[in-house]
Amino acid sequence: MAASKAERPAMAEEGLPAGKAAEVRASFARQGLMCAIGAAITELGPGRCALELPFSEGVSQQHGFFHGGIVGALADTAGGYAALTLLPVGSEVLTLEYKINFLRPAAGRRLLAEGAVLRAGRSVLVTRVDVFVLEEGQRHACAALQQSIMRAGAAPG
Amino acid sequence: MAASKAERPAMAEEGLPAGKAAEVRASFARQGLMCAIGAAITELGPGRCALELPFSEGVSQQHGFFHGGIVGALADTAGGYAALTLLPVGSEVLTLEYKINFLRPAAGRRLLAEGAVLRAGRSVLVTRVDVFVLEEGQRHACAALQQSIMRAGAAPG
Amino acid sequence: MAASKAERPAMAEEGLPAGKAAEVRASFARQGLMCAIGAAITELGPGRCALELPFSEGVSQQHGFFHGGIVGALADTAGGYAALTLLPVGSEVLTLEYKINFLRPAAGRRLLAEGAVLRAGRSVLVTRVDVFVLEEGQRHACAALQQSIMRAGAAPG
Amino acid sequence: MAASKAERPAMAEEGLPAGKAAEVRASFARQGLMCAIGAAITELGPGRCALELPFSEGVSQQHGFFHGGIVGALADTAGGYAALTLLPVGSEVLTLEYKINFLRPAAGRRLLAEGAVLRAGRSVLVTRVDVFVLEEGQRHACAALQQSIMRAGAAPG
Repeated sequence: MAASKAERPAMAEEGLPAGKAAEVRASFARQGLMCAIGAAITELGPGRCALELPFSEGVSQQHGFFHGGIVGALADTAGGYAALTLLPVGSEVLTLEYKINFLRPAAGRRLLAEGAVLRAGRSVLVTRVDVFVLEEGQRHACAALQQSIMRAGAAPG
Repeated sequence: MAASKAERPAMAEEGLPAGKAAEVRASFARQGLMCAIGAAITELGPGRCALELPFSEGVSQQHGFFHGGIVGALADTAGGYAALTLLPVGSEVLTLEYKINFLRPAAGRRLLAEGAVLRAGRSVLVTRVDVFVLEEGQRHACAALQQSIMRAGAAPG
Repeated sequence: MAASKAERPAMAEEGLPAGKAAEVRASFARQGLMCAIGAAITELGPGRCALELPFSEGVSQQHGFFHGGIVGALADTAGGYAALTLLPVGSEVLTLEYKINFLRPAAGRRLLAEGAVLRAGRSVLVTRVDVFVLEEGQRHACAALQQSIMRAGAAPG
Repeated sequence: MAASKAERPAMAEEGLPAGKAAEVRASFARQGLMCAIGAAITELGPGRCALELPFSEGVSQQHGFFHGGIVGALADTAGGYAALTLLPVGSEVLTLEYKINFLRPAAGRRLLAEGAVLRAGRSVLVTRVDVFVLEEGQRHACAALQQSIMRAGAAPG
């Protein structure tokens, strides 16, 4: 199911401390789910992470759109890595919770999730993620997520 | 990534109107995501749906646990079909939103999502889903979801 | 507990259809809770509503900050009226659900909730509301809400 | 707006460590909001807290029902104190976030919120709260909340 490297969009990154982008890329590469579905990081910055996902049978629901659960998974991941960019190299994060509202059916060829940190507290970071579906050159907002991320070491369980 | 039929658990169903279980099974089989990851329906009843998912590389996050986004996807799907059981044969449903709290890392060999309808309104149904991870014969609650499902025809967009 | 009219901030409104601002004001005035705590509408526009609330003993929690539940109530109300501005005069709305993340303690003299519609679907509108606390001329983001609003007539129960 | 002590329901409590019930009551009494609206604790136990609120003009919305924001505030408070019962005497808690689904209009004379801890982690506790409205001897589920509570000292900001 994985897209080839050649098909993957290039990644933009700026303003991050040394080693942070490489650390995020390495962590992302260990996420079996993101690899299996062919997701890629397209942008990283301080408190920001964008991911892109091509449509395939393996991420669809019964009407041939992106499955809402995959929309949530991509957005959850974008928010988590947006948070990780703000923490010292070597940090780990855990999702405490997320909430996603669906704005329209995710019918299109690519899905784009843009995560941004709203507030970086001492142990919890709050993010918002906007998800867009791309179809015929148009970009439509299709979901909105709000999420709590915990710095590991202050683990939830 | 799909589990063979022989490995899938048998499905229990009771109390449903004629044709409803077959309709839910057919809809589930058209969900490319659920097929790709090897999820199966293990229980259906009026306002109830349980799903099971074996662990595999393709549903993992960076520490080798079930990816939180997949936990959300499985729970979202269980809640949606729990809602569908209460609607007339031929109905469609859409997820308006869901919110998931993670209770502990989903570290184990199987994931079980049990969805139940809290309230079936005229156009919106509210569900709760409990997710458990199974490891060495033990079952641990690992996530809790609360969700709004809309009867299609009264579509969100 | 109500603030006198003289203390209330003036309301800005523009771009709304005839009668809409008056309708929103009349509905708001019938909300016993908003009157009891002294909340006021400070801005109305197409898909937008801002509310302001002065601190008082009656809206406090045990540390003397704004109670989180009141922060949620003010944000819920701002989101609901933001949605109502987009519907024909005579429409009614119901909150289906909301989710609020607290970004910092709401310690200050005034609370400001700014609601905006993210997506206006046929029967459901999705909003986001940002809440700020004002203290010594500074404005700090203290909460973020995401909400589903249903047009009445398509009622949830 | 406060109900007199004579009108308040008696509180049931059992299974709590020495001093815990008194501590919760003292904290609740310092919540200006809960006092102003006349809310009372009706039950406390390990991981459980129930609150009751009589209807009054000051907690109403534009149709004369309980305001959804007050339903959320009461549920938020019940969940927070349910969490506090599980922590050592002297602990403080903060709400990180909550999400509430409305199941039917809260039309009735009394509101009852029953909070229970789903999972008590090291720094975060997850709760669920069920809210009922009482009318003419009948009790109807009217809202469902899911919430994250943080032990203070591990503060969100």
